[in-house]
Amino acid sequence: MKKAYLISTGTELLLGNTIDSNSVYLSQQLQQMGIKVVGKSIVGDNREMIAQAFETGLHSAQVVIASGGLGPTRDDLTKEVLCEVLGCEMVLREEELEKIRQFFAQRKREMSDNNKKQAMFPAQALILNNHLGTAPGMYLHHNGCIVILLPGPPREMIHMYEYEAAPLLQKDMGEDINRSLTRVIKVLGPGESQIEQILAETLKEQEGYGIALLAVEGEVHIKITSEGEHKEESEKILQKITELIREKLDMNIVAYDDQTLAGVVGGLLKQDNLKLAAAESCTGGLLSEMLTDVPGSSQYFWGSAITYSNEAKKHFLGVQQSTLEQFGAVSRETAREMVQGIVLKSGADVGVAITGIAGPEGGAEEKPVGLVYIAVLMKEQLQVKELKFVGDRRAIRSLSAKTALDMVRRLVLKGGKRP
Amino acid sequence: MKKAYLISTGTELLLGNTIDSNSVYLSQQLQQMGIKVVGKSIVGDNREMIAQAFETGLHSAQVVIASGGLGPTRDDLTKEVLCEVLGCEMVLREEELEKIRQFFAQRKREMSDNNKKQAMFPAQALILNNHLGTAPGMYLHHNGCIVILLPGPPREMIHMYEYEAAPLLQKDMGEDINRSLTRVIKVLGPGESQIEQILAETLKEQEGYGIALLAVEGEVHIKITSEGEHKEESEKILQKITELIREKLDMNIVAYDDQTLAGVVGGLLKQDNLKLAAAESCTGGLLSEMLTDVPGSSQYFWGSAITYSNEAKKHFLGVQQSTLEQFGAVSRETAREMVQGIVLKSGADVGVAITGIAGPEGGAEEKPVGLVYIAVLMKEQLQVKELKFVGDRRAIRSLSAKTALDMVRRLVLKGGKRP
Repeated sequence: MKKAYLISTGTELLLGNTIDSNSVYLSQQLQQMGIKVVGKSIVGDNREMIAQAFETGLHSAQVVIASGGLGPTRDDLTKEVLCEVLGCEMVLREEELEKIRQFFAQRKREMSDNNKKQAMFPAQALILNNHLGTAPGMYLHHNGCIVILLPGPPREMIHMYEYEAAPLLQKDMGEDINRSLTRVIKVLGPGESQIEQILAETLKEQEGYGIALLAVEGEVHIKITSEGEHKEESEKILQKITELIREKLDMNIVAYDDQTLAGVVGGLLKQDNLKLAAAESCTGGLLSEMLTDVPGSSQYFWGSAITYSNEAKKHFLGVQQSTLEQFGAVSRETAREMVQGIVLKSGADVGVAITGIAGPEGGAEEKPVGLVYIAVLMKEQLQVKELKFVGDRRAIRSLSAKTALDMVRRLVLKGGKRP
Repeated sequence: MKKAYLISTGTELLLGNTIDSNSVYLSQQLQQMGIKVVGKSIVGDNREMIAQAFETGLHSAQVVIASGGLGPTRDDLTKEVLCEVLGCEMVLREEELEKIRQFFAQRKREMSDNNKKQAMFPAQALILNNHLGTAPGMYLHHNGCIVILLPGPPREMIHMYEYEAAPLLQKDMGEDINRSLTRVIKVLGPGESQIEQILAETLKEQEGYGIALLAVEGEVHIKITSEGEHKEESEKILQKITELIREKLDMNIVAYDDQTLAGVVGGLLKQDNLKLAAAESCTGGLLSEMLTDVPGSSQYFWGSAITYSNEAKKHFLGVQQSTLEQFGAVSRETAREMVQGIVLKSGADVGVAITGIAGPEGGAEEKPVGLVYIAVLMKEQLQVKELKFVGDRRAIRSLSAKTALDMVRRLVLKGGKRP
C-alpha cells in the first residue's frame, strides 16, 4: 500500500480557532484511492518548521501533499522551502505570469511585485491551475516521491485537488491503488481490551487484514482494513473477517459503517411497522434527541415525556405517589410504572423508560451517582434492568441513552418475546 | 515566549472521519497561558512515526504534549516510544496498578494482563490521574524540556489537562506567562461579518488587545486577548474592551467564557425561583437535553413533552384537532396551543414550545424546510416567533433550540413583561 504524508501550513492553524479541514478532506480522498496516510504535520509560516515537515514526509511516504503558503506575501514560504529541501532551482514561467497579470487586470487591481513569485517553479514541475484564486499549485516527481503543493483556502484546495491533482495521482499510482477495503463494526457492551483479546484469538490464523479499535461514547468501533492481491480477494478477506467477528460478538454488534445505533433501531421499527414512545428522567431528552436525529424518524417515533420532576412523572405517566414515596424516583418500580404509563398514554407498540442519577449531585450510599434503571415494554413483555455506570454526568447520560436504545433493539429483534 | 509542540496519535485521526479536536483544545489553552504552539504532528499507531514526531517536538519546543496511545492494547505505543527516544527505563508503579485493579473490580469486569502496562512509568515521571478512565498520564522533565502525555479520548484528555497538567505547567512556566488575559463573549443573533464590522468601528482607537471570531453552532464567540506591561494593565484593557463590546451588542450577548446559554437560562430561572416546562416537536428533545445537561437543572426544569406526532400533541398538550387540520402542525396557532398546553399541564411558571420542519423531507413551497415557530409563555405574556433557518437537519434543530433558549432568557430577564 502506498503511503502519503500531509502538511498544512499557516500560523492560524496553530491558534486553536481554525480547524485544519484540508488534511481531513485529503485523508478521505487518499483513503478512497487506497493510499494510506501515515502522518500529518501542521506548521506555522516558519522556514525551519516547514523544512522539517517536508523532510519527515519525504522520508516516510511516497506521496507528500502540502497545502497553504502559496500566496504572494512574505509569509508564503512553502514552495521556496520545498525547493531548498529538494535542492532544485526555480525558474520564471512566462505563461503563469501572464495569467496572474490577467487576473489583476480583470479585477482592475494593481499587481504587486510579490505576485511574480507565484509564477516561479522548478523546471520539471507540472503546474496545477487555480480556477478560484491566483496561486497556482504544482505536481512534482522527485527521487521516486510525488510532491503536490495546493493552496490553503479550502475551496481552492478542494477544487484544485479534484480537477488537477487527483487525475495525475490516479494515473501515477496505477492499478494497485484500489485494492484495499475497509469496514467498521460498532459494538456495545464489552470493553476495548476485552474485544482486543477476543479478536486476537478469533483472527490469529487470518491474513491480509488490519484492525484498529476506537472507543466512541460507550461504543467500541472495530475498523477492519483488508488488502489482497486484487480487489476481489480483498472483498473475500473482508467478508471472512467480518463473519468471524460476527460469530463471536453476535448481538453485541449494534451497527456497521456509517450506521448509528439510533438509525438501526429506527430501521427495525419501520420494518416491523411499530411505533415507539419514550419516558426519560435523568437523560432529560437525550434519548429522544438521538432517535429524532435520524431523518424520517416521525414514521416510527410517537414522542416522549421528559419527566424530570416527580410532578411530571405523576401527571404525564401516572406514576403512583405511593411508588415514589416507597421506592423513590430512581427505582425499578418507578421505571416500570414510567414505561407502562407511556405505553398506555401513547398507545405505542414499544415503550422505553429511563430513570437514574446522572450526578454530580444527588447520589447517596444506597443509590450512588451512576445508578440507572431502564425499562422496555412490548406486547406485555416487560424488562427492567439495573445499571451502574461510571463517569461524569455527560458519560452517564450518554451510556444510559445508548443502553436504552440497545434494549429496544434487542427486544424488537426478538419480536417482543422474552429477551 | 515559550514554544510548544503537539502530537496526536491514533490511526483513526488519519482516516478522515475523526477530527483531531485534542490539539485544537490544547492550542487554545496554551495560547491563553502565553505559550506559542509552533507545530503539530498527527501520526498513526506506528513506532517510527511516533518517534519522529517526538524528535521534531523535542528539537523545536520547550513543551511537548502528546495525546493518545496510553491504553492497554498493543496499538498503544506512545509512552513506550517516548521512553525509547529519551533513553529512559520504565518501572512498575504499584499504586497505579492497584487503581487499575479497583477500576475493573468496580465494573465487575476482568482485568487483562495488557492493562498492567498502563502502570509502567519512567522513575522520575510525575503521574497524572485519570478520573474518567483507566489510562494515567504523565509529566516529565527532560533536558530542559517538559513532556506531557495525555489520554486520547477528548473528555479524559481535557479533564486531565485542566486538573492535573495545567497547574504543574503553570508553575513551571513561572511569572511571565501570566501577563496576557483572555475572555470569550458569546453572541446570538448578528452574524460573523456583521460583528466584525461593529467591532472594527467600536474598537478602532483601542490598543493592547487581539480579537478572534469563531462561529459555533449558531453563536458567534468573540475571543479577546489583552496584553499589557503587567497583569493589572492587561486586566484594565480587557475590562475596557469588554465594556465597549457590551454597549454595542447588549442583549445579543448570551454568555461569557465557559458559560453556556442553557446554563445562563438556568441561572436566571433559579434566581427568580421559576419552573420551566417545554414542548418540543421538530427539535425532538434537543432543547430539553441542553437544559438538563446543566448539573442541578432539576431545581428549575419541570420536564417536557416531546410531541413528535399529532397524536402526542393532542394527548399530551391538548392541541385541538381542528387547529392541526386548519393550520397544520407547523403553524403559529399550533405553537401557541402547545405552549399553553404545557403550562396548563405542568403548572410551570414559564413555558416554551417549538414546532417546525427540520428536513431533509417534509418541506413544501408554502412551508419550506427550516420554517420554525417558537412560542414562550410567562404570566399570561405570550410571544410566538416565526423563523426561517437555513442549513441541514442538525443545524436547523440546533438553531431552533438555541433561539428558544434565548427567547426564554429575554422573557425571564424582563420578568415576563412584553419583550
